[in-house]
Parts: sequence; C-alpha cells; structure tokens
Amino acid sequence: MHNSTLQVHNSLTRKKEVFKPINEGYIGMYVCGPTVYNDVHLGNVRTFVSFDVIYRYLLYLGYKIRYVRNITDVGHLLDDGEDRILKGARLEKLEPMEVVQKYTNGFHAMMEIFNTKKPSIEPRATGHIIEQIEMVQKILDNGFAYEKNGSVYFDTLKFAKAKDCYGDLSGRIIDDLLSESRDNLKNQDEKNHPSDFAIWMKASPEHIMKWPSPWSEGFPGWHLECSAMSTKYLGSTFDIHGGGNDLKFPHHENEIAQNVGACNCQPANYWLHTNMLLMNGRKMSKSDGNTITPTELFTGESPHITKGYTPMVVKFFMLQSHYSSTNDLTNDGLLAAEKAYKRVMEANRTLQQLTTNASSNDLDEEINNIIESAFVDMNDDFNVPKALSRLFELVPKINSMKDGHIDVNHLSKDCLSNLQKTFSDFLFEIFGLQDDQDQNDGQGTALAGLMDLIIDIRKSARENKDWGTADKIRDKLSELNIQVKDGKDGTEWSLN
Amino acid sequence: MHNSTLQVHNSLTRKKEVFKPINEGYIGMYVCGPTVYNDVHLGNVRTFVSFDVIYRYLLYLGYKIRYVRNITDVGHLLDDGEDRILKGARLEKLEPMEVVQKYTNGFHAMMEIFNTKKPSIEPRATGHIIEQIEMVQKILDNGFAYEKNGSVYFDTLKFAKAKDCYGDLSGRIIDDLLSESRDNLKNQDEKNHPSDFAIWMKASPEHIMKWPSPWSEGFPGWHLECSAMSTKYLGSTFDIHGGGNDLKFPHHENEIAQNVGACNCQPANYWLHTNMLLMNGRKMSKSDGNTITPTELFTGESPHITKGYTPMVVKFFMLQSHYSSTNDLTNDGLLAAEKAYKRVMEANRTLQQLTTNASSNDLDEEINNIIESAFVDMNDDFNVPKALSRLFELVPKINSMKDGHIDVNHLSKDCLSNLQKTFSDFLFEIFGLQDDQDQNDGQGTALAGLMDLIIDIRKSARENKDWGTADKIRDKLSELNIQVKDGKDGTEWSLN
Repeated sequence: MHNSTLQVHNSLTRKKEVFKPINEGYIGMYVCGPTVYNDVHLGNVRTFVSFDVIYRYLLYLGYKIRYVRNITDVGHLLDDGEDRILKGARLEKLEPMEVVQKYTNGFHAMMEIFNTKKPSIEPRATGHIIEQIEMVQKILDNGFAYEKNGSVYFDTLKFAKAKDCYGDLSGRIIDDLLSESRDNLKNQDEKNHPSDFAIWMKASPEHIMKWPSPWSEGFPGWHLECSAMSTKYLGSTFDIHGGGNDLKFPHHENEIAQNVGACNCQPANYWLHTNMLLMNGRKMSKSDGNTITPTELFTGESPHITKGYTPMVVKFFMLQSHYSSTNDLTNDGLLAAEKAYKRVMEANRTLQQLTTNASSNDLDEEINNIIESAFVDMNDDFNVPKALSRLFELVPKINSMKDGHIDVNHLSKDCLSNLQKTFSDFLFEIFGLQDDQDQNDGQGTALAGLMDLIIDIRKSARENKDWGTADKIRDKLSELNIQVKDGKDGTEWSLN
Repeated sequence: MHNSTLQVHNSLTRKKEVFKPINEGYIGMYVCGPTVYNDVHLGNVRTFVSFDVIYRYLLYLGYKIRYVRNITDVGHLLDDGEDRILKGARLEKLEPMEVVQKYTNGFHAMMEIFNTKKPSIEPRATGHIIEQIEMVQKILDNGFAYEKNGSVYFDTLKFAKAKDCYGDLSGRIIDDLLSESRDNLKNQDEKNHPSDFAIWMKASPEHIMKWPSPWSEGFPGWHLECSAMSTKYLGSTFDIHGGGNDLKFPHHENEIAQNVGACNCQPANYWLHTNMLLMNGRKMSKSDGNTITPTELFTGESPHITKGYTPMVVKFFMLQSHYSSTNDLTNDGLLAAEKAYKRVMEANRTLQQLTTNASSNDLDEEINNIIESAFVDMNDDFNVPKALSRLFELVPKINSMKDGHIDVNHLSKDCLSNLQKTFSDFLFEIFGLQDDQDQNDGQGTALAGLMDLIIDIRKSARENKDWGTADKIRDKLSELNIQVKDGKDGTEWSLN
C-alpha cells in the first residue's frame, strides 16, 4: 500500500529512528494515564488524543497491539481524624475509592466524547500493590534502594554510578539531577541524598489508603506503579512508552531507573512525548484565569471563546499540530478549525457520492501520489498535520469533480474507490474524527432529508409567489432555531 | 410526601421487615456484580436493573447511599505452557486482563444502554488481593480455616458448631449442607470435610493469574472477594446485600460464614435476592437453544421473537414483574410491554402539556390518593409492578383530561403540578426509563417541528389540489422511511 518505513522520534536518543518492534507484527505500548482525583484537563485530553491517533495508525498498519494505559488512583486523602463511635459511621467518612470512581467515570466519558479507542488494559495502581511491593523488593535486593523508618528510597547516587543511563531521558546531567529533588513528601532527612526518591512510603496514621508491606503499612511511590504495571502486562522490555512532556522528569527518568534497577534492562525501546497545550500563547493556569475546561469549550461558556465548539472541532484543532509541538488554543484558531473541519467533512460526503465511467485514467497518478504522500507523512513520526494538509490538497479537486470543472471520468474505478476509502479511513479510522452531521440513529438522515424537502417547497412557493407557504416555513424554521442561508452554491442550513 | 414506612423482604429472616439503616440517613449497599469473562447475559441484566431501581428509589427517598458493586475478574485461564524463547513473546500470550477489560467495557456499555446508574464504587477482585489475604489470615487466626499443601480451606463443620448461623440464608439444614459440596476445584482429598470450601487456592504452574501469599503462590476463593471488599468499603456490618437468587448458595451462605468467621458479625442486615429470568416458561439455556442475548433482543435476530425491541421496552417488560418473582420473557409479553410502554410515555407527554385554571379542586383527592398508593407500593418491598399499575390507573384520566371528557380545571394547580412531577419522576428517576421519542440533542425537537410543518403544508396542498407538492412530500417521506397516518385525532407519524 505504501512503501515508506515508519520512523519515530525517540525521546531517549533524541533521534528519529526506524521503528522496529521487538516481536514482528506485535507492539506493546504503555501510556501514562490520568490521576483520577480531578476532572481531566484539556492538556491531558490532548495527550490521550495524540496517543489514540498513534494507536489507531499502528492498528491501521496491521499491527496487533497491546495498549496499556494506567489509572493513577493511589490517593493521598487524609482522614479528618474524628473519632466516630457510631456503628456504620464508615459511611460518613471520606472514601477515596468513591472519589476515584467518580473521576474515572468522568474521564471515560470524556474519552468517549472525543471518540478515542479504549486501551486493551487499563490497570489501576491500587490494583497492583503486590506487584509494586515485589518490585521494591527486587530493587532492594539489587542494592539500589535502602529502607529508613519504614520507607524505602531509591539510591540515585549508587544507581548513577553503577549504570550509565541515569539522566539519559530528561537530558539532565547527573550533577544537576543529583543536586535537586522534586519529591514533595517531606522526608528529606531520611534520604541519603536529596535526589533519592521514595519507592515505598510509610503512611502517617491519618492516611486513608495504605497497605501492609515488609517495611511498613504504607503506599507505593508514584513512579513505581508504571514500572510495575508495564512490566506485568508488557514484559520487562516493550516497544513504546508514551506520556506528556511534563512527565519526562522526574516521572519517566525515575521509571527507567526503577526498571533498570529491578530488571537490569531498559523498559521501552521508544519513548514518545507529547508537547503542551497552551492557550493564547501561554501555559494554561487556573491561578491567572488562563484556562478552559472541555465542557466550557463545548458550551461556549468561557470569556476566552466567542462560541461553543463541538468535540470533533476541538479534536480537529488539536490534530493540526504535531504531537511533539506545542498546540496553542485560541478562539481564532478554533473558528478556523471549525471551518476547515466542516470543509473536509463536506468534501468527504461529496467524494462518497462520486462515480466514474473511467473513460481514461489521466488523473490517477496525481491522486495516488497525494494519497501516498499522506502515508509518508504518517510514517514520518506520525505527522498528522502534514497528512491532514494532503487531504486538503484533495478537497478542491473533489469539489471540482463534483461541479464538473474536473472530469471525474478521468479517474479509473480503482483509483476513485481507493480515494474514497483512504479519504474516509484517514478521517474516521486514523484520526478518529466523526462527522457531526452524521447521526447513527437515523434522525440525522431524516432531518437532512426533511430539510431538503422544505428548501425545495420553499423555492417553489417563492417562485409561485405563494407567500403564505413561504412565510409559514420561515416562521417555523426560526421557531426551531434552524438557520437557512441562500448562497451561490445552493441553500445551506444549520441547526443551532 | 408519603407516610408509609419502607419494608423489605429479608432473605435472611424470610420475613418482610421495616427497613432501618444502621446510620440514620445513610445506606451501605453491596450487590454482587458480573464475572467478566463473557458477555453479560440477560438474566444478569435483570438483576442489575432490579437493584438499580432499588438504588434509585432509595436515593429518591433522600438517603445518602454508598452503592458498591464488584467486578469478578480473578480468572482461571491457563497458559498453554508453550515455551516462548523470543524476547517480547509475552505479547503473544493470552493475557487475562485483556479479556477482563473487553468484557468489563461490554458490561458497562450494556448497563448504559439500559440506563442504569453507575455504582459509587466498582471494586475489582484482582485489585483487592491483599485485603483477601488479610481476611484469610483472620479466619485462620480465629480457627475457622486450615491450610493444606498451600491452599486454605474454610472449616464448615467447626464453624457450624461454633456459630449458630450456617445455613440461615439458604435455608438448608446443616446436615444437608455438610453432606454436599459444590466446590468444582478438584481438591476434595485435601479437605477435612466435603462441604469445606477453599478461601485460598494454590495455583498450578500453568495458572496465569496468581499472587504470592503466606501459604502459596495462588489466588483467592471466589466467595472471598465479596466478603473482603464489602468489609473494606462498607464496614463489617452494613445495610443491604443484594444479588441473584442463584447466588444464595453457596456464594452468599459462604460469604456470611467468612464474615462471621473473620469479624464475628453478620455482614448485612438485609439480604435482597432477585429471581430468575425465564424464557417461554423455562430456564434459559444455551444447550437447548432457549436463550437470547440483549443484542438479539434489540435487533430482532432470534427465532424467539418476531421483531426487535428497544432497550427501554425490554426494561419496561422486566419492571412488570416484582424483583423477587420470576420474569418470563415471551414475544407476546414483549409486544404487550411495547404497547404499554408507548402508552405510558405518550400519557406523560400529554400530561406535561396540561394546564389548569383550577376552577375547583374536586379531583385532587382522587389523584392524590393514586399517587400516594404508588409510594405505598414502592415502600412495600419495592413493588414496582404495582406502582406501575397506579400509573396506568392515571393514564386514562390523563387522556380524558386532554380530550375534555374530564375537566382538567377541576384539579388545583398544586395537584396538577404534583401529578406532573410525580408521574415523570416515577418513569424517569425511579424506574430509570427513558422516552424513546426524546432526543437530548435537539434533533428530536427539530424533527418533530419539521414534521408538524410538513403535515401542515401537505394539508394545505391537498386542500388547494396542489398535487405536485403533495406528491413531492409523499415521495420524500417514503424515501426517508417516515410513515404518516391520518386518524380522527389528527395526523400521526413515525420514523422507522
């Protein structure tokens, strides 16, 4: 189908490399999932949409993929310490799992709204405490960790000396790494070195989520879950590890250290990182108000936008930036994305109606080249914006074929049907878009059909100066919030 | 609002009892959830729909409820034992969690199709191995279990002698219980007594899902997970434990034994059991073909039915039987349910349009009494079919108010608005039905509005002998599969 070879930018080597899975035909992919103590924010959505497209494209290429995306549900909620003597008083207490369930449900709903595919396995950190304890033990056994007062710390200094890889991913030089620590749990005095990090934490008495372990009643360090769960489901070395850029350090750097410390091998051959979602050129931040939630984007209820955008328009907007570039959300950008999205969907609908009698095949080569280029783009580190631009090269051609400026009969049957299939495959299978005008329940079709009928009757009524009928139609459409616009290409309508 | 007291039939005492929660205003409810190694079957759907209505009604009464429904995901898939030397070969291996994820997703989707509310917590058995190991240890410490060759068995004989409760739930007398065993794991020779059951099983080498424990690398017995997870999230004694009738023995009987054995108290004050879903008067069974899946019900692709039914019609059908009675699925029953469902939804739509000038309030008492009776029914062990029949007492009255046979002005404003609210609350909040004619996305409204317009234009066209327009309308509606029927009450339409 297409001859170029898939290359991916590997954050670990900072190079674009030919992608070669460990086991031919199979791919193991791990992506760091959400922490479920808050609503998922739009930056996360961008990350998960990006990896969804990568997943979809790899599936499209025919790989059998085990895609693991975890749920970080180990939480640090504290009991209020109030002594409840009533039987059953537990029901009045805060239960972290109830919080977890709520936000997990919300996350899943949002992923569905953005039409992403579900991962093959979605393991939870709390569901893998035993595996994490076993990994802590391995790291201890290998001499890369030490216990203090019931907590276990990863010995970064010793690890850095023994293994020549600490700092490779984040690109930080060892001295930098070793002089800093982002560990926000206040046990600095227990650590041999400030850059050491906890892999098992002894819980304070008011800590609700805690489990027994050989060292203390406590909980695993945050970095540990991904090491333990990726190893469990994908093996000690697998193909692709993904996540947001912000996770490179300390999370992913420490994840690598843990895996090497426990299994003496690198966890993943290719590390892929998505870049940040900005708004109005700046980092999103709640404190200065430069932020927007997915729901606000859909409803338009935000000072940053002039109207609401459908999830598919928002997704289309995101796809216009490469996953490894920043993506700057602005109202103008969204407006432009909406226009482009409608244009490409309209073109697809037009394309699917075209037929050819294949009187010649003059146009085949040109069309096939554009299609081939789109695959070359995708094979070039999943360059979605470039592949999208190929579709937009095709849009005016499709429109010209419709209105006769280009003779569709100069396309062979095979070429047309390949174009039809590939165009819609890119939109729906690979990019995971949906056509907002489609409604699976048949109502969309009925609505569109009835509007055709009404626009037709309206035209006749006007021509026959039947103002009664014309007025009746105008009033009813206005009542139903249906806008009708007569243009040179015919009459368009939209439902608000 | 209503003065009767909620009573529930307690399977444990085999009596109807006044419901009194342990902690006023709060309810802890545990329902045994699905095993996720198969598609959810219709009998399970009935159970979960039944408990959803119970949950919804308790919420409606104003209780704050923690509703826990587990996912049984500890599986007994076996490795094929093939020695794979390739690096990464793990990806080619069967991974039980991938199977679990697939069927969990399918289960969730089906629960959504039937419009059930999500539980507050949905704990997984594999996510609570530590808690289960701790409970095994407690039972061992209390002397009600013994270890043999790495497996741990519950000592039913000793338990039955020490505690006067074994057999209470299933109503089996001790001698019966002790003479039989349904444990299908073939370790009879390790047991002291045939009725003993495993609470921890040593795994054979080809067993994939296994965890380390003080006794062996193995997995928890099936009954154990519910004991451990209900205790963890609801406390050692909570209010309601629910499940299908088929779980009474051995699952629930043994669950009680484990809880009493570990914590020396009964886990739940009220045990509620749903009865079986039959088909054509017989138990559903794959082997003799007397079975149907939810999807077959929706599509009509089954020899047992003459057409497809919407999920809401199927749900309505189920609601027509009390949760503790058998529910016999037949095509005739479904056809009748469809008719009744449409009738009550239509009545609700009519009701919501009624207005009164309240010239008198003669009718208030009669209406209020019927409404009150529906609550009395619900308070009588959640008698949904009886409460439904109250709504159907109201249907002809509502229809008569619409066509003027009953003067709606004889209803006070308060009574009408109470009737409107309660009628729709019962349908949508308590029974959890949806009106198939509603479409939340506004397309339904637009469609209905456009059809009004078209039927209006069609009428004028006919009156004016404008056959061109009339034919155009007829052809387009036929093309769109929209049926129009002129009756004495006006013109009705439906979209197929």
